[in-house]
Amino acid sequence: MNVKSVFSHIDKHIDEHIAKVQELVRQPSISPQDVGVRDCAKLVQKYFKELGCKRAKLVETAGNPVVVGELDAGADKTVLAYFMYDTQPIDDPGWTVPPLEARLVDLKPFGRVLMARGAYNSKGPMVGFINACRAIQNAGEELPLNLIFVAEGEEELGSRNLPEFLKKEEKLVKTADYVFFPFMSQDQTGKVQNFLGVKGIIYFELEVDGKSWGYGPTEFDIHGSMKCVMDSPTWRLVQALASMTTPDGNRVLIDDFYDAVAPISDEDKEALDKLAETFDEKSFKELLKIERLMDDVHGREALTKYLFDPQLNIDGIWSGYIEAGTKTVLPWKATAKVDVRLVPNMKIEDILPMVRRHLDKHGFSEVKIRSMESGYGWAKLSVNHPLAQAIIESYQEFSYPIETWPTLAGSAPFSLFAQPPFNLPFVAAGLGHGARAHSPNEYIVIDEGGPTGGLATMEKSYIDMLTRISHINPP
Amino acid sequence: MNVKSVFSHIDKHIDEHIAKVQELVRQPSISPQDVGVRDCAKLVQKYFKELGCKRAKLVETAGNPVVVGELDAGADKTVLAYFMYDTQPIDDPGWTVPPLEARLVDLKPFGRVLMARGAYNSKGPMVGFINACRAIQNAGEELPLNLIFVAEGEEELGSRNLPEFLKKEEKLVKTADYVFFPFMSQDQTGKVQNFLGVKGIIYFELEVDGKSWGYGPTEFDIHGSMKCVMDSPTWRLVQALASMTTPDGNRVLIDDFYDAVAPISDEDKEALDKLAETFDEKSFKELLKIERLMDDVHGREALTKYLFDPQLNIDGIWSGYIEAGTKTVLPWKATAKVDVRLVPNMKIEDILPMVRRHLDKHGFSEVKIRSMESGYGWAKLSVNHPLAQAIIESYQEFSYPIETWPTLAGSAPFSLFAQPPFNLPFVAAGLGHGARAHSPNEYIVIDEGGPTGGLATMEKSYIDMLTRISHINPP
Repeated sequence: MNVKSVFSHIDKHIDEHIAKVQELVRQPSISPQDVGVRDCAKLVQKYFKELGCKRAKLVETAGNPVVVGELDAGADKTVLAYFMYDTQPIDDPGWTVPPLEARLVDLKPFGRVLMARGAYNSKGPMVGFINACRAIQNAGEELPLNLIFVAEGEEELGSRNLPEFLKKEEKLVKTADYVFFPFMSQDQTGKVQNFLGVKGIIYFELEVDGKSWGYGPTEFDIHGSMKCVMDSPTWRLVQALASMTTPDGNRVLIDDFYDAVAPISDEDKEALDKLAETFDEKSFKELLKIERLMDDVHGREALTKYLFDPQLNIDGIWSGYIEAGTKTVLPWKATAKVDVRLVPNMKIEDILPMVRRHLDKHGFSEVKIRSMESGYGWAKLSVNHPLAQAIIESYQEFSYPIETWPTLAGSAPFSLFAQPPFNLPFVAAGLGHGARAHSPNEYIVIDEGGPTGGLATMEKSYIDMLTRISHINPP
Repeated sequence: MNVKSVFSHIDKHIDEHIAKVQELVRQPSISPQDVGVRDCAKLVQKYFKELGCKRAKLVETAGNPVVVGELDAGADKTVLAYFMYDTQPIDDPGWTVPPLEARLVDLKPFGRVLMARGAYNSKGPMVGFINACRAIQNAGEELPLNLIFVAEGEEELGSRNLPEFLKKEEKLVKTADYVFFPFMSQDQTGKVQNFLGVKGIIYFELEVDGKSWGYGPTEFDIHGSMKCVMDSPTWRLVQALASMTTPDGNRVLIDDFYDAVAPISDEDKEALDKLAETFDEKSFKELLKIERLMDDVHGREALTKYLFDPQLNIDGIWSGYIEAGTKTVLPWKATAKVDVRLVPNMKIEDILPMVRRHLDKHGFSEVKIRSMESGYGWAKLSVNHPLAQAIIESYQEFSYPIETWPTLAGSAPFSLFAQPPFNLPFVAAGLGHGARAHSPNEYIVIDEGGPTGGLATMEKSYIDMLTRISHINPP
C-alpha cells in the first residue's frame, strides 16, 4: 500500500469525512429510550454497502438489529471490526449545544471539535474507521486485511443480544483472526492511553413495592401522615441499599463480593508502576470537574483502585414526590438502578445470586431484583501479545507519548469475543481525542494542530494499525 | 332562625350549590407548583363579596395572599372560619377522571360524588360553608354569629406565611371567640369521626451534592465506572437516611427524637378505649387499598400509634438516571423530601437542629438540610370543652353514629390559632363524606340517600353547629 498517497487523500477530502461523521451523529439512535435505532442501523448498512461489502445486512435479534458487513480483500488475515451504533440519551442537563445537531465548536486548545451525543461514544471512531477504509479504496490501494464489520445497537443496553448474534453468526465470526475496536486513545494533552482490557458490568434494578410486599401502600402513594402506622417501601429500599456498603458508600458488604477478585499479576504491577509515572491526575480531574478522589487517594494507589477494584454504584434512585415544593405522601414504590463492575476473576453469573442472598440474609426478602439483561464479563490482553505489540509500535510511529493501561475502568463487550468459542485477541485502539461519554457536551477533536490528533490523524492511525496487524506472524 | 325554612331553601337550590363547588374546583390553585393560585384567591374574594362582607380583601404576604372577609351579623359572638383555597398537585398517576374537570361520577354506595383534586381537601367543605351562609340570608334569616373568613393559599406548603398574616391582622383575629374549620367528618359508612386535634408537621429536604461536599462529581453526572475511585453523593444520602431509622424504617434513631413525647393522658386513654370499640379497621384499609399496618398491629394498638406516635417519613427521593432502561452514571447530587409529624409535647423548633446534630454526629456533615419553611405545631382541644360539646350535640341531632378521635394523624395549622397570643378554642367539624386527599380520584359525596350525608347535609350541619356555638355560655 502506498501509505503516503492514502494519507494525502484523507487530508484532501477531510471536509467530506467530517460531514460523514456529522451525518451519522445527526441520526438519533438512543437505545435506552428506543429513539431512531433502526433508522440508524439502515444508515450504517448503507455505509457498508458503499464500501463494497459483499454482504451488508441487518441481522435481527430479540432486540435491535446487528449490522454486518463483509469486505473481502483476498488477504490472508481477517480482522473483525466491532462498532456500536447506539448512544446514551440526550436528556441530561448542562448541554451548551443541541445534542444531536453535530455542531462544530471551537474548543481551546483543540481547535474545532464536534460536540454531540455519540461523537466520542462511538460514532466518531466508527465513521473514522469507515472513512479510512474508503480512503484506501479511493486512493486506488488495496486493503491489507479482510474485514468483517459488526455494528451492534445495544451496547448502551449492555449488549444484551450480542451473544444471540454471535451464536447465530458463529461460523462467520470464527473466520476472524483478531477483533479491532476503533477507539480514540489520546487524552487532552495528546498522550496515548493504550488500554488492554475492560471491566465487566451487570446492571439491574432493586425495587420495593407495597403490592408484592403486602406491607405499606399497595397501589398508589397515600397520605404522608400514615407513616407512623404503615411500613414504607422507600425506607426499606434505603435500608436495603445501605446494608450493602460501609457508611462511606465505598466498601461493598455483600458476602463473597470480593472473594473472586484476583491478586494483581506481576505484569500488571509493572504496568501500574509505569503508568503512575506518566498518569496526569490533574488533567483527569479537570476534565471531569472533580476535586478529589475517594479517600483522597493519589497516583499509583488511585490507579490501582480505579483499574482493579470492583464496584457497586447507584446509577439512579427514585420514589414518591420528586417535583418542586412540598407534597406529603407515603410512596407505594421505590426503585434504584444499580451496576456492579467486575474485575478478574469475578464471574458475572455470580452477582445477582450474591445480591439476592445478601438481601434475604439481612431480612430484605421483599426487595426485588429486576435483571436488565445487561452485562458481560471483564476481558484482558497481555501487553506481550503480538497484537498488543503491533498497536504499541503504531503509536510510536506517530510520535505521541504512550501510556499503557493494563485495563480500563469502563466496560465493553470484549469478553464476548475473547471467551470461548472464539478466543479472539482484541484491541481497542486509534489516535484522536474525545471526552465526556455519558455526560453533556460530549465531543471529539476534528482539527489538527492542537495537542491531540484530529479526525485525519485518527483515520491514518487506523490504516497504520491495520497494516501492522497484517504483518503479524502466525503464532 | 327558622331552621326548617333555611334547610328547605338548601334542598330547593342544591343544584346551584353543587355548581358553586364545581366552579371553585375548576379554578386551579396548586400551590406546590404555583398554578392558578392568585386567580383562585380572587374568586374566593368574589364569594365573600357576594355574601355581603363589609370587608373582602386579599391580604398580601411574602407568598400567596390570604383572602379575608368580615361578615357582621350584629351578634354577640364571633367565629373565625378558616379555609384553605390551595390544593395538592394533579400529576399523580391513577386518575380515572380529569382531575380538574369537577365531574359528577356515580360511586357505589354513595350515589353521585364530585371527583376532583381539591373536592375534599378542601374546596368542597369551603364552598359548602359559604353556601350555608348564603342559604340563611336567602331564606330571609339572620346569621347567629359574626363571621370572619380567613382563606389561606399555602396550606399545602405548610402555611408558611400564615404566621405573618396573623401578626398583621392580630387585632382582627383577636375579636374572634372561636375558630371553626369546615370539614366533612363522616367515614364511608356514615359514622362521624369527630376529631379534636392534629399533629404538627415540619417538611424539609436533605441533599448531598459533590460541589458543596468537595468529593464525588461536582457539576454533572459522570461515567458510572468512576465509582470505584470516587465518592457517591447518592450512597451518602442513602447511608445518612438509613442511619436515622431502624432497618425496618419504623423507629427513629435520631437522638432526643422521642424525648418530648408526652405520656398519653387519662382523657385520651379513655377516648382510645371508646374509639377502639367502633373503629372500622376493615373500611379504613379498604379505602386506602392497604393490606396490613406496621408490625401487623390492630385495633387500639394501631390507633394509639396512629394518633400519638411521631414519625419520620420519606415523601420523595431522587438521584441520577431515573428514566427507562440503562444509563451508567455516577450522580453528582441526591435529594430526599422528608417530613416529621409532631405529637404533644414536641416542639417544632427542636426538629431541624436535632436532625443536624444527628447528621454531624454520624459523620454526615456534608448532608445539607433545606428548610421548606413549612410547618407548624400540634394542637388539641379537650373533649370537655363547651365548644367540643356543642359539636358533639350537633352530630347527635343528625342521628349518625359518632366516634370521637382525640386527635388526627394529619396536620393542619390549628396551632397558629390555639397558641398565644390568640389561645382560641377550635373545632374542625361538619357532616358529609370525602376521601383520598393527596391521592388520585379524590372525591366528596354529593347525593343524599347513601350511607353518608351529601352536600345538603354538610351545609345543614354547619348551620346547626353555628347556632349551637352561638348558644355557648361565656366561660
